Amino acid sequence: MTTAAVAQLQAEVNRLRHELSTVRAHEQAPTGESIFVGQYLVERLVQLGVTKMFGVPGDFNLGFLDFVEDHSKIDWVGNCNELNAAYAADGYARVKEGSLGVLTTTFGVGELSAINGIAGAFSEHVPILHIVGVPSTSQQKNKPMLHHTLGDGRYDAYHLAAQHVVISSTSLINKETAAAEIDRVLTECLVMARPVYLMLPTDLAYERIPSYRLKTPLSTEPPANDPDVEQFALDEIAKLIEEAGQDAIILVDACAIRHSVKKEVHELIQRTGFPAYAAPMGKTAVDEQHERYGGIYVGSISHPEIKEKVENAKVIISIGALKSDFNTGNFTYHIPTSRTIELHSDHTTVQFAEFPGIGMKRLLPKLTARIQPFQPDAKLIPVPSFTLPLPQEDNDIITQTYLWPRMGQFFRPKDIIVAETGTSSFGVLEVPFPSGAVFISQILWGSIGWTVGSTLGAALAGRDLGYKRTILFIGDGSLQLTVQELSAMLRSGVTPIIFVLNNAGYTIERFLHGMERKYNDIANWRWTKLLETFGGEQGKTCQSHLVKTKQELSALLDDPKFAAADKIQLVEMIMQPRDAPRALKRQAELSGKTNRYVAELPEGVGEAV
Amino acid sequence: MTTAAVAQLQAEVNRLRHELSTVRAHEQAPTGESIFVGQYLVERLVQLGVTKMFGVPGDFNLGFLDFVEDHSKIDWVGNCNELNAAYAADGYARVKEGSLGVLTTTFGVGELSAINGIAGAFSEHVPILHIVGVPSTSQQKNKPMLHHTLGDGRYDAYHLAAQHVVISSTSLINKETAAAEIDRVLTECLVMARPVYLMLPTDLAYERIPSYRLKTPLSTEPPANDPDVEQFALDEIAKLIEEAGQDAIILVDACAIRHSVKKEVHELIQRTGFPAYAAPMGKTAVDEQHERYGGIYVGSISHPEIKEKVENAKVIISIGALKSDFNTGNFTYHIPTSRTIELHSDHTTVQFAEFPGIGMKRLLPKLTARIQPFQPDAKLIPVPSFTLPLPQEDNDIITQTYLWPRMGQFFRPKDIIVAETGTSSFGVLEVPFPSGAVFISQILWGSIGWTVGSTLGAALAGRDLGYKRTILFIGDGSLQLTVQELSAMLRSGVTPIIFVLNNAGYTIERFLHGMERKYNDIANWRWTKLLETFGGEQGKTCQSHLVKTKQELSALLDDPKFAAADKIQLVEMIMQPRDAPRALKRQAELSGKTNRYVAELPEGVGEAV
Repeated sequence: MTTAAVAQLQAEVNRLRHELSTVRAHEQAPTGESIFVGQYLVERLVQLGVTKMFGVPGDFNLGFLDFVEDHSKIDWVGNCNELNAAYAADGYARVKEGSLGVLTTTFGVGELSAINGIAGAFSEHVPILHIVGVPSTSQQKNKPMLHHTLGDGRYDAYHLAAQHVVISSTSLINKETAAAEIDRVLTECLVMARPVYLMLPTDLAYERIPSYRLKTPLSTEPPANDPDVEQFALDEIAKLIEEAGQDAIILVDACAIRHSVKKEVHELIQRTGFPAYAAPMGKTAVDEQHERYGGIYVGSISHPEIKEKVENAKVIISIGALKSDFNTGNFTYHIPTSRTIELHSDHTTVQFAEFPGIGMKRLLPKLTARIQPFQPDAKLIPVPSFTLPLPQEDNDIITQTYLWPRMGQFFRPKDIIVAETGTSSFGVLEVPFPSGAVFISQILWGSIGWTVGSTLGAALAGRDLGYKRTILFIGDGSLQLTVQELSAMLRSGVTPIIFVLNNAGYTIERFLHGMERKYNDIANWRWTKLLETFGGEQGKTCQSHLVKTKQELSALLDDPKFAAADKIQLVEMIMQPRDAPRALKRQAELSGKTNRYVAELPEGVGEAV
Repeated sequence: MTTAAVAQLQAEVNRLRHELSTVRAHEQAPTGESIFVGQYLVERLVQLGVTKMFGVPGDFNLGFLDFVEDHSKIDWVGNCNELNAAYAADGYARVKEGSLGVLTTTFGVGELSAINGIAGAFSEHVPILHIVGVPSTSQQKNKPMLHHTLGDGRYDAYHLAAQHVVISSTSLINKETAAAEIDRVLTECLVMARPVYLMLPTDLAYERIPSYRLKTPLSTEPPANDPDVEQFALDEIAKLIEEAGQDAIILVDACAIRHSVKKEVHELIQRTGFPAYAAPMGKTAVDEQHERYGGIYVGSISHPEIKEKVENAKVIISIGALKSDFNTGNFTYHIPTSRTIELHSDHTTVQFAEFPGIGMKRLLPKLTARIQPFQPDAKLIPVPSFTLPLPQEDNDIITQTYLWPRMGQFFRPKDIIVAETGTSSFGVLEVPFPSGAVFISQILWGSIGWTVGSTLGAALAGRDLGYKRTILFIGDGSLQLTVQELSAMLRSGVTPIIFVLNNAGYTIERFLHGMERKYNDIANWRWTKLLETFGGEQGKTCQSHLVKTKQELSALLDDPKFAAADKIQLVEMIMQPRDAPRALKRQAELSGKTNRYVAELPEGVGEAV
């Protein structure tokens, strides 16, 4: 039986167990209260810990929005546009581990505007529910040429398009199956940690259905591991480590966060003492202040000391790997498969052996127990100290080499730190974060502008969970794509600090290709006027600052009123257009070669023939 | 043989003719100069009259952008985001009849951000070429986990999604077929007046190919009509009109503009003298100052006089119908098929008879010649005078009832007038436009915020064609979705007048459902600070105004410096939240009933069970 078939069978068993338990609950309450389908959906979300719903109102979703607005436990966050709403749902889900992000858009015009945000969540394993308000069931049968349609009756076109970027979808068509379908996609969303898509017709939102199913919470645990296979894999792992004389390291990556094993990973490191490193997308999966933590491994772009320690270890225990180009120094890992153990949400590999269906959530605690005896030797393995000292520079420019270590001094425990794709996401990697800090970036999907919406979502989730500050680093080019969500931040009362790197253009693109090209230039905005223009009151509900020198920046960071982050703040930092972090320069160089761009052609080569 | 099969055969014949002629051209120039594939593409666009390319730079399209930046006849317009770029390409194409709009985005993150704009162009028959820079041909074979990918090797996912909203697409895979594929999709784009999609790999953009094909311009004429069928249809039409005692009217709609028959329609009206009316989407297909033009027909929402004239005519010659809900007063045409002749780009109907493949481009001149003899009688049919007098109101509020007639006094010949979906698109319908004015709106697709990007594109195309001013009406809610494109307007030097209807919220949504709901509220921005914040200099490169009363508005409109529109200007108009044009109220009422929203439920009905 194939892996996929086994997984499917297991999922089916889980689903049937759940159905059986809900039917039994019904038997016990035969009088059965009833509830609108739209309310049922909202109740399930509340049960799953959702406190905010993102989106934009539009014809076909307005009736459903009434339920959201009226519910005391969930708030409607009106975004300025649907792409930003999807970005916000993504950021929310990344911080609110175990829960999900939710957005509601309207048929055609709304949902298609959001689809890039959904695709990014798919790519990076983020659980999002995309609710789309659609025409009534009878309109969908008769297919009149409504606004928001393609004019040719293809009412299913957007659902078909969406299916390429979600793990599961449903088009609710009748009240008899609505609740089961809602439960199904929500479960898949959380178990698989991927986005799902739900079409909610205007009439169906207001059909009454029994409410008893709500008594049985959804089960979002991953399926159990086959005990025989799991035992075998554990034996193999332990044997490998022992044969290597306990010379092993742990490498954590994206899916350690996305598939909720941070606690289990912490236990593993704490009790075994093996050194731990993180790929960029795994940054803050492990407490970066932990004594056994050595820093960021990015293939050949790594600091030499880290590269040496990781690549010379006899065994690498990789947890949640997601080996994308920017996450691996353009695929320059020098780690032979023969020395690698890979733990994933749905399979394990030990050297060249694959164990499908053996998921790390259930494996890790057993692994920890099994290899804890190795601790005395494991703890002796040296770990480089992960620091980033402030450089001595004899100029007053805010350089990339100064900025990131200086920010390292500014960060505090339980900060949420968001870094846009570009100099920010590469630069901040080298900064050791304080305990309890969370790193948010989109290193695989890399859609510039994403961080504005995701900062909003992250800050809102952070508020629920006792995080302190949310800090965003974004380039001027990126901010232009999605700037209006500053308005939603003001409106929702979150108080992030937004550092805008004003270096006059799309810097990551300059380094990929076209360093001097006009298409990499942008308009220079009055960045420090943005918050006021979007409704803020300088000094009251917002504050903006402009810093041009190291001294000005440092003084601002040291100002306790600034650092308190009790109102939304934007800091424009003047930086050099052709300055970039070392890691970005190296990565761009490597990517550029792979892209096979022609080296700069002679003048006038693009002229008409 | 089916209609589709006939059309396909005809298209194949045309394609072979073209191929034959290009091969012959090659024979005459055997030494054959060569050209990069990317340059070939740009040359074809220049041949087709494209002077601007919209989009956003991103990895995988940068090398191609070099060709665009270096070409003297085409300008790169860097948009702030890809959705706005698609909107701009749409607006450009609508004004530059016979040409097309073009945007370039990047793989995954860029193209998916644009897809809502492409879908809207599909829906409304607008020719756009969407160029997507994608990974090299070898990367597409090997499928490494590059940034902007879904992480599972599905490099074709975005192409598959796009296919639902374009008429044709191509993924260029080798240099041997590149030129033919480029020619194919460009031809289909223009003949069908719909968007097409082209994937351009980084390496292929820089492959050298022969350039001889460029000597043969693309043929974008629609196929010829079968002469026998055409003759038969003409006879039937003439007979019907004669039997009706020449009691006929002409009703022009969207596709009369979209499929380039405005000239032919003008000839028809001019030479026959039949009265002409327009559906909303056909507004300005006919010169609204023409003596035989009677105004806008919108089913039961029409002015009673127009409704009476159209619905009582014995024959209705409908040209380019696109009968969407907002275009027909929610499908309330009272025009029996037995009295209708419909002319379309690819078929004709006469009463209940269909004539597939008989297109109006070639039919219309023959029809005009055939029924011109009816003129003496036709000219006697009374036509209501299409006017919109200024009402007498005893308050100083800027009401919807005052605004539109007052704007009617402000409009000038050769204005481009853009109206956002909402109170603007409904309100401006009733205003008789001056000669040579163009109406731009998105009445079928209805994606709010579209007009900001489309105004940019329309203004740029207008500059090429000698249009005078571009005037945009947009609601505050809509402007928030896409506001950053004001920056691109400043940067490109266009000088539209942007009237912002500040009525505190999503007004069209209020009237559809949720009049008092918080989700229909928006943040109040400092609208008159937007242009400066995005880089404008008040008084130099931009000007903003705030008007709160009829008197202030009128004085501004009468100010010749304002009316000269020599710099970009934004006018914030304070209006009442629950004021809307009569047509919108009626339409929303009808749509609301069809949506089967439940009437306002008792308080607290959305509360948790």
